Amino acid sequence: MSLVDCRDLLVHRASQPEEGQARIGTVTLVGAGPGDPDLLTVKAARALANASLVLYDHLVSPAVLALLPADAERIYVGKESSRHTLPQTSIIALMLRLAQAGRSMLRLKGGDGYIFGRGGEEAQALAAAGVPFQVIPGLTAAQGASASTGIPLTHRDHACALVLATGHLRDNNGLDMDWAMLARPRQTVVLYMGVNNLPEIVRQLQAHGLSGQTPAALVEKATLPEERCITGTLDDLPALALRHQVRPPALIMIGEVVSLRRQLVPSASAFHF
Amino acid sequence: MSLVDCRDLLVHRASQPEEGQARIGTVTLVGAGPGDPDLLTVKAARALANASLVLYDHLVSPAVLALLPADAERIYVGKESSRHTLPQTSIIALMLRLAQAGRSMLRLKGGDGYIFGRGGEEAQALAAAGVPFQVIPGLTAAQGASASTGIPLTHRDHACALVLATGHLRDNNGLDMDWAMLARPRQTVVLYMGVNNLPEIVRQLQAHGLSGQTPAALVEKATLPEERCITGTLDDLPALALRHQVRPPALIMIGEVVSLRRQLVPSASAFHF
Repeated sequence: MSLVDCRDLLVHRASQPEEGQARIGTVTLVGAGPGDPDLLTVKAARALANASLVLYDHLVSPAVLALLPADAERIYVGKESSRHTLPQTSIIALMLRLAQAGRSMLRLKGGDGYIFGRGGEEAQALAAAGVPFQVIPGLTAAQGASASTGIPLTHRDHACALVLATGHLRDNNGLDMDWAMLARPRQTVVLYMGVNNLPEIVRQLQAHGLSGQTPAALVEKATLPEERCITGTLDDLPALALRHQVRPPALIMIGEVVSLRRQLVPSASAFHF
Repeated sequence: MSLVDCRDLLVHRASQPEEGQARIGTVTLVGAGPGDPDLLTVKAARALANASLVLYDHLVSPAVLALLPADAERIYVGKESSRHTLPQTSIIALMLRLAQAGRSMLRLKGGDGYIFGRGGEEAQALAAAGVPFQVIPGLTAAQGASASTGIPLTHRDHACALVLATGHLRDNNGLDMDWAMLARPRQTVVLYMGVNNLPEIVRQLQAHGLSGQTPAALVEKATLPEERCITGTLDDLPALALRHQVRPPALIMIGEVVSLRRQLVPSASAFHF
C-alpha cells in the first residue's frame, strides 16, 4: 500500500460527523506496561492524568489506576484468564456506543496493546466505525520481568532471537502453538498466560526436541512489589510451579539467558530513583 | 565529543586525588526507547533528568538526549551499523574505569538494553567487577513502529507469536540466523539491523518456505518525525528498499499483520497529547 492511500484513509477517518450529530468521541489505546507505574511511558502517564473515562482490563495494576484523576469514570471490562468479565465483542460494542455518544476515552490494557492485548481487534472495530483512535505502546511483561529479574531477553552468546507467544487455550480446542518453532535452540521464549497449561507446554517442547535441561523461569507479577522469580530447568518447571503455587499472571521464560540471572540479579538497594 | 577527548577526560577524572579509596560509582542501564522522547518510561525520564554523566549509543535520538541536564557530561560510544566507534570491550573498560574512579553514570541505549542492546554483556562485566547497576527497560523499536504505523505485532487471526531477531552480520561470517524458525507461518517477524542484508534475508526466508506474497514492511526511524513506512510483500521488499533508499536504522516487519496497516494507520490529527 502506498503512502498516498494512507493519507486518503486518514482524511476519510478524520472527517467530522454531519451537523446535528454529536461530535464523535476518540479512543486512546494505552499500553499500561507490566505493572510498576514508573514503567509507563511518559506519554501514557500524561494520557492517564488527563483521562475522564477509562475502560480497563484485569491486568492493569492498581498502582497504575491510581494515576487517574480522582473523578475519572472507570469501567472494568475484565478479563481474568478463564473468566471473561465482558466478552471481547461486548467490550468493542461498549467502546463504540460511548464514542458515538461523544465520549472520549482511554482504553487501558496491561502490557502493550499490540502484543497479545487484542488491541489490533479493537483498533479494527474503531477504524471500521469511523472512531478516531491512537495507540500508545507500553512495555510488555517480558521486558519488565527481564529488567527486574536479571534475565536479558537476548545475548550474543546465548540467544539470537526472542520469541513471545501465548500459552492459553484458544476456544477450548487445545493449545494453538507452533511447537516446532518454540522448541528451536539458541533463542529465548517467553510464554504469556501459560501457567495453567505448564505440564502440557513442557511435554510438547520436549517432544519437539528442546532439552529438558534448558534453563527456565517462572515470573509472577513482574515489576510489582510482590514479584516472584523461580528458576530451574524446563524439566522441573511444572513441579516448581506446584510447589510454589505460581498463579496467573505469570510468565514462563525459557532459554540459556535464564542462567545469567545468578550473575545479574539487580542490586536495587544501591539506587535511589 | 571525540574519542580522544573522552579518554583525556577520563584520565583527568580518574587521577583526581581522593582521600582513601574512592567510593565506587553505579551504573544505570537505561533503555531509551525507539526515539520519541514521550515514549521513554517515566523512570527513564527521571533518570535522565538527574544524570551527571552519560555514555550513549548511536541509536539514542537527539530529542532524548535533550532531556539531560545542560551540564551533564556526555560521552558518545557509538556504534553505527558497520562502523563501531568504540568496540564493545572498550565501552565496558571505560564504564569500569569511570565507576572505579567513583563516577556514577547512565548507560543509555536505544530501544531496550536487554533486547539486542548488548546490555546483558555490559551487566555481566559490571557484576563481575562489583559495580552496582540497575536496568531500566525501554520500548523496543518494534513496539514504537507497531503503534505509529498501525501494524499490530500479534493478532488472533494472523499471528500467534512475535519473533524479534537481528539481521546483521556476526563477525563477518554470514548471517547467523535460524531461517527455518523465521520462515514459519502464522507469526510476526521483526528483524533489526537487516536492511543492508535484505536481498539475502528475503532469499533465505523464501528458500525455507515463506511465501513471497507474505505482507512485509520497512519502517525507517520509527516514532521520529521523519519516520517512513513502506509496505509491500516479501518478494518486492528489496526493490522497494532500493527505490525508496531505505537506510539504517530501519526495521523489517514480516507477516500477515502488515496487511492491517491499511485499516489501522493512526489518525493522530484527532489528538492533542
